[in-house]
Amino acid sequence: MSGPRSDKPDPDEFEQIAALYRPLTRGAPEALSLLDDAAVIPQRPGFDLVITKDALVAGVHFLPDDPLGLVARKLLRVNLSDLAAKGAEPYGYFLATAWPESHDWPARQAFAEGLRVDGGAFDLILLGGDTVSTPGPLTLSVTMLGWAPAGGMIRRGAAKLGDRVLVSGTIGDGGLGLRAAQGALADPTGELADRYRLPRPRLDLREALRAGASAAADVSDGLIADAGHVAKASDLGLRLDLDRLPLSEPAAAWLQAQPDRAKALLWLASAGDDYEIVCAAPQVLPGFTQVGEITASGLEVVAGGQPVDAGAGGWRHA
Amino acid sequence: MSGPRSDKPDPDEFEQIAALYRPLTRGAPEALSLLDDAAVIPQRPGFDLVITKDALVAGVHFLPDDPLGLVARKLLRVNLSDLAAKGAEPYGYFLATAWPESHDWPARQAFAEGLRVDGGAFDLILLGGDTVSTPGPLTLSVTMLGWAPAGGMIRRGAAKLGDRVLVSGTIGDGGLGLRAAQGALADPTGELADRYRLPRPRLDLREALRAGASAAADVSDGLIADAGHVAKASDLGLRLDLDRLPLSEPAAAWLQAQPDRAKALLWLASAGDDYEIVCAAPQVLPGFTQVGEITASGLEVVAGGQPVDAGAGGWRHA
Repeated sequence: MSGPRSDKPDPDEFEQIAALYRPLTRGAPEALSLLDDAAVIPQRPGFDLVITKDALVAGVHFLPDDPLGLVARKLLRVNLSDLAAKGAEPYGYFLATAWPESHDWPARQAFAEGLRVDGGAFDLILLGGDTVSTPGPLTLSVTMLGWAPAGGMIRRGAAKLGDRVLVSGTIGDGGLGLRAAQGALADPTGELADRYRLPRPRLDLREALRAGASAAADVSDGLIADAGHVAKASDLGLRLDLDRLPLSEPAAAWLQAQPDRAKALLWLASAGDDYEIVCAAPQVLPGFTQVGEITASGLEVVAGGQPVDAGAGGWRHA
Repeated sequence: MSGPRSDKPDPDEFEQIAALYRPLTRGAPEALSLLDDAAVIPQRPGFDLVITKDALVAGVHFLPDDPLGLVARKLLRVNLSDLAAKGAEPYGYFLATAWPESHDWPARQAFAEGLRVDGGAFDLILLGGDTVSTPGPLTLSVTMLGWAPAGGMIRRGAAKLGDRVLVSGTIGDGGLGLRAAQGALADPTGELADRYRLPRPRLDLREALRAGASAAADVSDGLIADAGHVAKASDLGLRLDLDRLPLSEPAAAWLQAQPDRAKALLWLASAGDDYEIVCAAPQVLPGFTQVGEITASGLEVVAGGQPVDAGAGGWRHA
């Protein structure tokens, strides 16, 4: 069908699916051209299906005026980050969108374009979904599917006493990036704000994780919280040394300028949105920095060589 | 952990998961006690995984003051109805809930209790999900998984020219039931309102469908619309004879009292929420009534022996 013109009403649900979403199936037969009520996933011998689900609400998880193409890409990437931490290869996704009336056809096109860009970049198939209307804010839910070698998914709750606690990349950039995006922090290169706006799921670390990690999670709630989730799900404890925190150049410069170094380190390790991976492993793995150890129980955080109080927020949820 | 008391704050996210949702995994190892970011679905040789996703929004898909236990059961059942139409055996589900602040702990408990009741009745495992807050209305999304024998999922778009169009059970009770629930229609036995409030997914028809149906869909948007979806997805047309519509006793009594029989039949075949199954099959199947034929193209609807105009709503979406 032809595209909508300004003198025509917005396309109906079936036209929207045909125009916006069908191209995102990338011709995969299991999506049944989005003409069915269901998708059918054939067996893949030697692999388990790994499934994760995340919901985002405008005004809660992203700013109501964030560009919708970027929101779409972030939606896919936060789910891809979960797959990365599980050592799983991305496969496809189901999408539910609840649209407010204020989001017109061009807004929906921008959203679908973001899905198209990252669907291509990460080799993802749109497998199905549901599009409804809402009197409330834009609400998005993705169920993301990936493949892990049979029995090989890396769990959150399988850390072992004495494992090292490792983290990938650099920590704190997501939190600083949010402040930069809000204009509360200078960010001359734009590096920090970019890091917040568009997470980079660490799918490149899957092999290293599968080869050597006992347990892993992605760093979305903050390093202390997510490392805590690994320890707690494993019925064990955790010691973190924040002086070993891997920092980007702008984060190191920011830390240098803070009056209370321990407090600033605690902030960097509690702010979320890093989308790096924290894991427990007997040995340091390539691409990771050791920041602590798995202990028998409790949460111990050290900064500036002194124990600091991470607070309930760190242990539970940022 | 112990239950909340009135002098204590509401449980946090992790406590809510432990208290409300972990029991719904029914001990299934693939849910990883909801302690992980993902679930892992092992291979089941000889079966394909069938996945469907539906979203419900308060004020759009259910009434804001509907009892939440009933809303939870309806949420599962509308998804189970999709699986039934695909000939798939229910397996488990992922749940995303966006809660407004106005929904306190007892409301969330009532919702979880509804999930528990029907999770048990339909042998479903809660596999994972996400719980977020929203400034908008309660928004629910379920991704439901089922198993179909390899290659045996019944598709929507596989009808054949000359197939009979069959429908299960009785049609129109869902639409009349909504009117009864709103108090706009007498319903002395409560049968109609029950039918609207709590769909009965026709999982009992899976064997018959798998044995003899070319294509199928569930009747959620109305018989004309959903039969139309089957025809359209198959690149074929449809003739429906509404004088053959299977009716319940209360629906037949209602029809008897209407001044314009053809118009009333059209209304019954356009109202949604029946959650019966419409299929295309070379022969009539047990549990089904023939209401028409698959044709080469177009939509033809007959009522009272005369062609009637089903309107764009019937062909496209009720």
